[in-house]
Amino acid sequence: MEFTVSQIAAMLGGKVSGNENEKINMLAKIQDAKKGQIAFLSNPKYEQYIYTTQASAVIVKKDFQPKKELETTLVLVEDPYISFTVLLEEYHKLISFQKTGTEQPSFIGKNSTAGKNLYQGAFSYVGNGVKIGDNVKIYPHVYVGDNVTIGNNTILHANVKLYAGTRIGNNCVIHSGTVIGSDGFGFAPQADGTYKTIPQLGNVIIEDNVAIGANTVIDCATLFGDSTVVRQGVKLDNLIQVAHNVEIGKNTVIAAQTGISGSTKVGENCMIAGQVGIAGHLVIANNTSLGAQAGVPKSIKEEGQRLLGYPVFDIKEYFRSYAVFKQLPDLNHRLRELEKRVGINEPINANGKEG
Amino acid sequence: MEFTVSQIAAMLGGKVSGNENEKINMLAKIQDAKKGQIAFLSNPKYEQYIYTTQASAVIVKKDFQPKKELETTLVLVEDPYISFTVLLEEYHKLISFQKTGTEQPSFIGKNSTAGKNLYQGAFSYVGNGVKIGDNVKIYPHVYVGDNVTIGNNTILHANVKLYAGTRIGNNCVIHSGTVIGSDGFGFAPQADGTYKTIPQLGNVIIEDNVAIGANTVIDCATLFGDSTVVRQGVKLDNLIQVAHNVEIGKNTVIAAQTGISGSTKVGENCMIAGQVGIAGHLVIANNTSLGAQAGVPKSIKEEGQRLLGYPVFDIKEYFRSYAVFKQLPDLNHRLRELEKRVGINEPINANGKEG
Amino acid sequence: MEFTVSQIAAMLGGKVSGNENEKINMLAKIQDAKKGQIAFLSNPKYEQYIYTTQASAVIVKKDFQPKKELETTLVLVEDPYISFTVLLEEYHKLISFQKTGTEQPSFIGKNSTAGKNLYQGAFSYVGNGVKIGDNVKIYPHVYVGDNVTIGNNTILHANVKLYAGTRIGNNCVIHSGTVIGSDGFGFAPQADGTYKTIPQLGNVIIEDNVAIGANTVIDCATLFGDSTVVRQGVKLDNLIQVAHNVEIGKNTVIAAQTGISGSTKVGENCMIAGQVGIAGHLVIANNTSLGAQAGVPKSIKEEGQRLLGYPVFDIKEYFRSYAVFKQLPDLNHRLRELEKRVGINEPINANGKEG
Repeated sequence: MEFTVSQIAAMLGGKVSGNENEKINMLAKIQDAKKGQIAFLSNPKYEQYIYTTQASAVIVKKDFQPKKELETTLVLVEDPYISFTVLLEEYHKLISFQKTGTEQPSFIGKNSTAGKNLYQGAFSYVGNGVKIGDNVKIYPHVYVGDNVTIGNNTILHANVKLYAGTRIGNNCVIHSGTVIGSDGFGFAPQADGTYKTIPQLGNVIIEDNVAIGANTVIDCATLFGDSTVVRQGVKLDNLIQVAHNVEIGKNTVIAAQTGISGSTKVGENCMIAGQVGIAGHLVIANNTSLGAQAGVPKSIKEEGQRLLGYPVFDIKEYFRSYAVFKQLPDLNHRLRELEKRVGINEPINANGKEG
Repeated sequence: MEFTVSQIAAMLGGKVSGNENEKINMLAKIQDAKKGQIAFLSNPKYEQYIYTTQASAVIVKKDFQPKKELETTLVLVEDPYISFTVLLEEYHKLISFQKTGTEQPSFIGKNSTAGKNLYQGAFSYVGNGVKIGDNVKIYPHVYVGDNVTIGNNTILHANVKLYAGTRIGNNCVIHSGTVIGSDGFGFAPQADGTYKTIPQLGNVIIEDNVAIGANTVIDCATLFGDSTVVRQGVKLDNLIQVAHNVEIGKNTVIAAQTGISGSTKVGENCMIAGQVGIAGHLVIANNTSLGAQAGVPKSIKEEGQRLLGYPVFDIKEYFRSYAVFKQLPDLNHRLRELEKRVGINEPINANGKEG
Repeated sequence: MEFTVSQIAAMLGGKVSGNENEKINMLAKIQDAKKGQIAFLSNPKYEQYIYTTQASAVIVKKDFQPKKELETTLVLVEDPYISFTVLLEEYHKLISFQKTGTEQPSFIGKNSTAGKNLYQGAFSYVGNGVKIGDNVKIYPHVYVGDNVTIGNNTILHANVKLYAGTRIGNNCVIHSGTVIGSDGFGFAPQADGTYKTIPQLGNVIIEDNVAIGANTVIDCATLFGDSTVVRQGVKLDNLIQVAHNVEIGKNTVIAAQTGISGSTKVGENCMIAGQVGIAGHLVIANNTSLGAQAGVPKSIKEEGQRLLGYPVFDIKEYFRSYAVFKQLPDLNHRLRELEKRVGINEPINANGKEG
């Protein structure tokens, strides 16, 4: 992983001003960069740093005119920030996909197959009848139950756990400690106060381009042939609860510690903040935005609303009501004063009687 | 795992109408079932499907009279839904308990013993002095610390972690990533602003027939000889926090992401929804029902209440108050209008002074 | 781990009354203690137990005068409770640090080094270029990514996961299932409704004397050279979410299930209760106290406040407002009565029109 400045300029469609054979092995911020690293300058208020940076090269706008002499090499491009992002991504791909081969000891069951460039870390477990695509990375301590399928280019970080029958698409990233396919929370109350376990026999389907954070849990569906489904492009943060038979629509983004109860269908392109709770058997319309800690006990039918509170209502109205909530003792006092002025001696309660 | 229809009818105490030698290897919904599968018909509105289903057999009420010709075999019983549930359970048991034997590599310490039909998955770790009952399933990556005891028929899914000294009863199921016996959160403040760790030396006791979801945490008790206790029949969902010295009474059910602080005693047969928070050192009466996201800062002494809010009060009253909360800006406006009518020029604040 | 009473008295700077050769192997509460165990008597209301305890020795205040004959040996000290705490800590250290050596199979990559008295449990994984200090305990199933550093006397319980580049200080304890260094939740919205992953290239730094509970998640910083930082002496409970680029000031204590969003800086010596949510890019002043389930959408600039609600305000005012919230239906009724008395037939809404 070492490039020359001229190789990087070629990758970005830019031009070099300075030593095009300078070696680059890392990316960094302009104020922190050291020899061997490349930085970028986009916001003019950081211009001062370009005259003192230790970076071997800096990506700048193609019309950049230095005010002092420069020690660093320049890469001249249309948009330095976008170019830097492109490098970040390339670097990240290199890092993410550099591991290949099988570390020992690892476990692989019967009738399981994998495509090319597999990385299987030590102490990872792959059960029977598992189908793994190309370029898949299975980090140490990952558990893959029987009959799981995993698409191409998917990364399972250390200690991801996939119960039997789970299906994961292409280009997914799942972080450490996340559990997919555990039993839904289903118990039938009995006459004697105990509960009988309702067997959970469905599975979980994760479509393509889904990212899932760490220590999140997605339960399987209850019945045979049914699935808890996370549609393509969904992004889930850490410590999220997704109950049995939930469906999360494509490109919906959910922040940490949110919980979605059983059989609820969340629409597409929703933005759900952290610590939100959504009850079971609901439908949440597309493009719904839920503020942090919101509670949703009923379906949301109108698309595109921004909601807060428990139960949720319009976020602006919530804040207006809350402003008055903070003054409630005053409000109560003002009301009592009024009652005195009009000759009510004792507050009238809701039953219509004084006292 | 293949049965004939006559074997299934015998198991359910029912009668066969059709081909009693038909082979069954799976259960399914009547509208989705395929050859080799058995479905059930209970709700009359699904009757249409029995005439087109691909199922090899359908469980029906014993007085069922088909309106058209049937291609499927019938199993006639008292209550088709209950009979189907019985089959589901039997199937689930077969699935759950089919794994036996020891996969390698796995680790077992000194002086540890196990009963019959043990399954010990690869990369599972069993410490010293552990006692394991009959028919126990220890999936891959499970960690069992020193001197743990595990009862009969208990299933520990992949990567369950039991700290030293934990005691688990019979017929328990614990899902992946759950941690039992970690240190309680105890730190004594020092004069210099730092905290000294209070050693946590107790353990956790899980009684019989307890189910625990994925990525839940149950801390150990603080002192020697003390235990955090989960009584028989309790059902805990995913991502729940149970702090040191908590006791959860029998047959109580707790939904995902709820947290119970240290030394609180939760009663029997309580129903606690998701994302509820309960403070420490409280007593929660039997049969208490707590709505989602409720916050409980004080003990609940009266049994059988349904509560919501923070702090909690009666759930119906909460919703009535909340309905007015949503109108608070209007209420404030109405109050201001009244003040003008009676000649108050400036609102009177809670200190009793105008202005 | 067996001591004589005289050895214990020497450790505590106390005197023995009774058999100084009595053997002690355990600590216990006075009412539960058995032969071979030592207890303490501090609160006079427990004095009754000293006359019946089975404990081989009891730590008492140096001026303790028994009212009846005693069967147990006494250790006379200045403050029995503090002395007992000292013993607890010593005992805990013995327990915590008794494991040494390397269990097999375990994995260690290239160019990794460790100090003296390492414990490396079976199925633990240590990557390339890892630096481990003295007296470190790495329990089974721990994952240590490439180029991690771990200070002296640090304990990583079973299944802790440290992503590549994480830095852990001295005297830290991290409990099972906790994930440190997972990707921050960063996705750039695209014109077509999908999201592009923003590579997460920073790391996490945990300073000295930090305790972290079970199944907590701390994400890495976004950019190279940036870090999510947990300062010295911080105590984090279970199931906490700490997002990318967060900094938690020294000696701050955070209870279970709280979440802190990206780039927020929490001050020093804060006390944050359970299930609190803090939005991103905020600054929380030193010595801030946040009540359970509080929600913080804006920076807190004034130090030393005690806050509650969503959005948070003064905790006492919150409870005063909430007391009126519970009476809102009555308040609304009283308002309507007043309107009738002054001749308003229909409530006036916030637009200023009757009706």
